[in-house]
Amino acid sequence: MAVYTEVGDAELESFLAEYNIGTAQSFKGIAEGVENTNYVLTTDKGQYMVTLYEKRVDPKDLPFFLGLMDHLAGRGINCPRPIHGRDGNALRSLAGKPAAITSFLQGMWPRRTTVQHCGPIGEALAGLHLAGRDFALKRTNALSVAGWRPLYEGCRAHIDKTLDAELGAEIDFFEKNWPRGLPAGVIHADLFNDNVFFLNDRLSGLIDFYFACNDFLAYDVAICLNAWCFESDNAFNATKARALLQAYEKVRPLTDEERAALPILARGSALRFMLTRLYDWVNTPKDALVKRKDPQEYLAKLRFHRGVRSLADYGL
Amino acid sequence: MAVYTEVGDAELESFLAEYNIGTAQSFKGIAEGVENTNYVLTTDKGQYMVTLYEKRVDPKDLPFFLGLMDHLAGRGINCPRPIHGRDGNALRSLAGKPAAITSFLQGMWPRRTTVQHCGPIGEALAGLHLAGRDFALKRTNALSVAGWRPLYEGCRAHIDKTLDAELGAEIDFFEKNWPRGLPAGVIHADLFNDNVFFLNDRLSGLIDFYFACNDFLAYDVAICLNAWCFESDNAFNATKARALLQAYEKVRPLTDEERAALPILARGSALRFMLTRLYDWVNTPKDALVKRKDPQEYLAKLRFHRGVRSLADYGL
Repeated sequence: MAVYTEVGDAELESFLAEYNIGTAQSFKGIAEGVENTNYVLTTDKGQYMVTLYEKRVDPKDLPFFLGLMDHLAGRGINCPRPIHGRDGNALRSLAGKPAAITSFLQGMWPRRTTVQHCGPIGEALAGLHLAGRDFALKRTNALSVAGWRPLYEGCRAHIDKTLDAELGAEIDFFEKNWPRGLPAGVIHADLFNDNVFFLNDRLSGLIDFYFACNDFLAYDVAICLNAWCFESDNAFNATKARALLQAYEKVRPLTDEERAALPILARGSALRFMLTRLYDWVNTPKDALVKRKDPQEYLAKLRFHRGVRSLADYGL
Repeated sequence: MAVYTEVGDAELESFLAEYNIGTAQSFKGIAEGVENTNYVLTTDKGQYMVTLYEKRVDPKDLPFFLGLMDHLAGRGINCPRPIHGRDGNALRSLAGKPAAITSFLQGMWPRRTTVQHCGPIGEALAGLHLAGRDFALKRTNALSVAGWRPLYEGCRAHIDKTLDAELGAEIDFFEKNWPRGLPAGVIHADLFNDNVFFLNDRLSGLIDFYFACNDFLAYDVAICLNAWCFESDNAFNATKARALLQAYEKVRPLTDEERAALPILARGSALRFMLTRLYDWVNTPKDALVKRKDPQEYLAKLRFHRGVRSLADYGL
């Protein structure tokens, strides 16, 4: 993980004293997650997750994230539900970091994604979009089009001229042609395989809402096309995409404008992950405790979507 | 952690099919432990630990380690109990690594050690020594006196002349003066605070038997004096040592020879941890995913024990 904050015995005890969830019987730091420090907490009343928010999360955003999880859990979405303390607050501090306790979700994220996962993903994503409709707080997507040029500028010194020209042209294109006026709402914005739990072949939970924001709902669909519908050799799998899109539409049909916009949204989403990975790649010291993700994967996906001529390419 | 092996979905499923412990509901890699990859496994029947043995553990030693845990658990020691598969075996392979499942121990290791921990540690250590008496397998302590000179030779190119002379003199001294014929048996050999769980102020379990071996029982006591009875500024705390030693002797009284040998055993144990830490320090690439431990701490402890004139210095 990127960061790992140790919690002292007395600190943990006084932190838990603010809650009605019993006393700690086990408290283990887990190796998953790169943004925050996560502990599995077992008390005499059950299992919980304790998250310490590290510097990649802006504390100002925490009321949005925790409020959203509360809102979604209240509408039947299987997501971590923030545990509120005796004072009503879900957010407090632990070991000098903002921290929260949430419910523990059963299930495991699939290490290898298959077509069997794609239907449940589409269905769950649409359910999330419907459940988020009346959430009152707003958070701008800092990693949408306006955020891409600064990322690109921060990488340019480290990339060759050919790639520089390709990325520059993409950004020019998106700045001129990005869709407007599509149905918008709360999106997860990071629904990769390590953020989705399955149990007995059923989707059992969605986690990690720390990129959630307000944006076009179809952009979230586009992110999932990139995250779930390519093979490990970066070949697009239209069967997976069809399963994902058809299941999504059973819960929330896409408008004609959303369907028409899907290729550009998918291409833009590929650029977004390409750029953040590239930025981390060139700006992370080689000896840092961060597992760097390969930006090439998303460059290949971007190029695929650039060549998409109709929705038939997505299996529709 | 030093190493982290990912386990595929199908691999885990077929691995668990060898056991009678139900189906996985959660499987989380934990951040503790530097030698092996550890997962907390929750099934419909309970919680377990799954350990994948990485290259620092010699597979030839695994029958000793697993057999010892079986033996100790059968004698009432709260330690991880290996779970045997349908075929009777506790050791098999997972993701290409030797792997075992053990019971899950409740409790948390104390991040800050206090005098309140020292009595329970002494008592548990003596109980472990008694319970191990009739364990049939043997494992030589590769990190006793004979192992120190090779470690030292592997560090010499990286240390200054003063330290080189001090360590060389220590090894000469130990090779000539190390005790012989003291009561011997199975020792834990690594009973540091992160290997001891407490729950509600009581010691609830001992873990990590992967340094266990046959050696002088009093050498294990000496290791605990170093691990539990110094303050963070490396000042010795005789009150802690008295608590640890008195509690140990209530269960297993030390012989006169063991008492007389305690200063040299403690000094030798300090050198052993100094040398392995120093060796790791100078031989671990700075960008490795290993948290290096400071060898200076154990140099200070070694110097303290070198100055010990009588057992009164240990609070006895």
